[in-house]
Amino acid sequence: MMSFFTKYEKNFKTKQNFLCVGLDPDLGKIPARFKTSKNPILDFNRFVIEQTANSAIAYKPNLAFYEAYGEIGNTALLDTCKALKELDIPVVLDAKRGDIGNTAEFYAKAIFDDLGGDATTLAPYMGFDSVGPFAAHIDKLSFVLGLTSNQSASDFELLELKNGKKLYQAVMEKVTSWREKHPNIGLVVGATQEKEIKEIAQITKNTPLLVPGVGAQGGDLKAVIENLYSNNILLINVGRAVLYAENPKQAAENYALEMKKIAGF
Amino acid sequence: MMSFFTKYEKNFKTKQNFLCVGLDPDLGKIPARFKTSKNPILDFNRFVIEQTANSAIAYKPNLAFYEAYGEIGNTALLDTCKALKELDIPVVLDAKRGDIGNTAEFYAKAIFDDLGGDATTLAPYMGFDSVGPFAAHIDKLSFVLGLTSNQSASDFELLELKNGKKLYQAVMEKVTSWREKHPNIGLVVGATQEKEIKEIAQITKNTPLLVPGVGAQGGDLKAVIENLYSNNILLINVGRAVLYAENPKQAAENYALEMKKIAGF
Repeated sequence: MMSFFTKYEKNFKTKQNFLCVGLDPDLGKIPARFKTSKNPILDFNRFVIEQTANSAIAYKPNLAFYEAYGEIGNTALLDTCKALKELDIPVVLDAKRGDIGNTAEFYAKAIFDDLGGDATTLAPYMGFDSVGPFAAHIDKLSFVLGLTSNQSASDFELLELKNGKKLYQAVMEKVTSWREKHPNIGLVVGATQEKEIKEIAQITKNTPLLVPGVGAQGGDLKAVIENLYSNNILLINVGRAVLYAENPKQAAENYALEMKKIAGF
Repeated sequence: MMSFFTKYEKNFKTKQNFLCVGLDPDLGKIPARFKTSKNPILDFNRFVIEQTANSAIAYKPNLAFYEAYGEIGNTALLDTCKALKELDIPVVLDAKRGDIGNTAEFYAKAIFDDLGGDATTLAPYMGFDSVGPFAAHIDKLSFVLGLTSNQSASDFELLELKNGKKLYQAVMEKVTSWREKHPNIGLVVGATQEKEIKEIAQITKNTPLLVPGVGAQGGDLKAVIENLYSNNILLINVGRAVLYAENPKQAAENYALEMKKIAGF
């Protein structure tokens, strides 16, 4: 089976951008023509993949959007992963799981073995116990939440620690320290302000990064690429702005081209 | 549909203890006689429920143990929830989800509407955005991770903040403050040391509490009940020590009786 890293290299080499398309299908938002099909979610995903596969270097289905639709959602997720496997494009299963060791092993099995994800996202709160069982899958990549771009990130992520650092900085430092033994651990960095992005770049260096919050959620593409890319694995997720664009193919191409231009490829 | 709170009252009144049985079926550990059945997980759960329903006031399936078994796991979870619904016993779906608002809504739908859970567990890292959409289900209860009992809880939960408090204390204080507007929010408290438990009791007061880590994971039943119960909702989870006991019925009865005795009911 091809590892995340091989798939990533293959796609990055040929496409030369950072575009990760977020596959978060919302039945209330997908075009009407899909709604009569047997599995609207799956057919919509197939359409989006077909339209965007020449631009995207990865796809990121968020599990919530599948779990919410029961049996149809589960089938759609499984078959979406299968379709992407045939294209050798990395699948980041955005799950933000976080549980103790024994339980984390079962989650890792579900996400990597059963669903066939190439990468995933994890919550940091419970510490390394939540991450180790995922990192044990050495062909897979696990992105741990560092900083998120939602409003209430300030509730805890921005709390100031005794040593003057913010909690998210401590999390990022600890996670990068885990990379000595487990180079297949990365970070989710939902930064939107340039000052913050520059500070983060000092910590993350060669760490693989997943950046959400570009597109419908706002965010500064230029600041992200100029500060956070230095030959590390970098995935910049665009969700709704591609999925629900009038022309998803064109929207994805535009993002890909813009990323390429900023990076100077 | 009966709310969590009604189900809880009903069970607590008649059984007078705090026993929550963790339904975390591991195919490698369940008795051999179940392994030939069409759905070993479901049949094992049915057996455990039948054996323990006179003692337990709630059940807590951890979703990892179902997701890891794909289609069989999903069916087992759905049918386990249905079986418990017929008994009017609260089901805590231990999911530790944590994502932004739009996504959290989908997770809440999956857990409360599709699976029919009465309560769930949530991760705090991303703040109230992750919790609000769950709390909007006013008949359901959401326990947010406060302190966990695993070893690497020290990675982040025990970090000291600028104000001298530990991160988990700040989380607990913030979560209890959310209860003014959303009384259906509780906390997960995995405390094992008496000093810690006493400090936590000062913060949590009337907050509904879910206490894991008693039983196979160790933990001091007496300290937990004496300090953390004061007419609040209190669920003390016992997992493997009941599930894989030679006689689960007897094991559950013993725990229930011990809890009752300590509480002085």
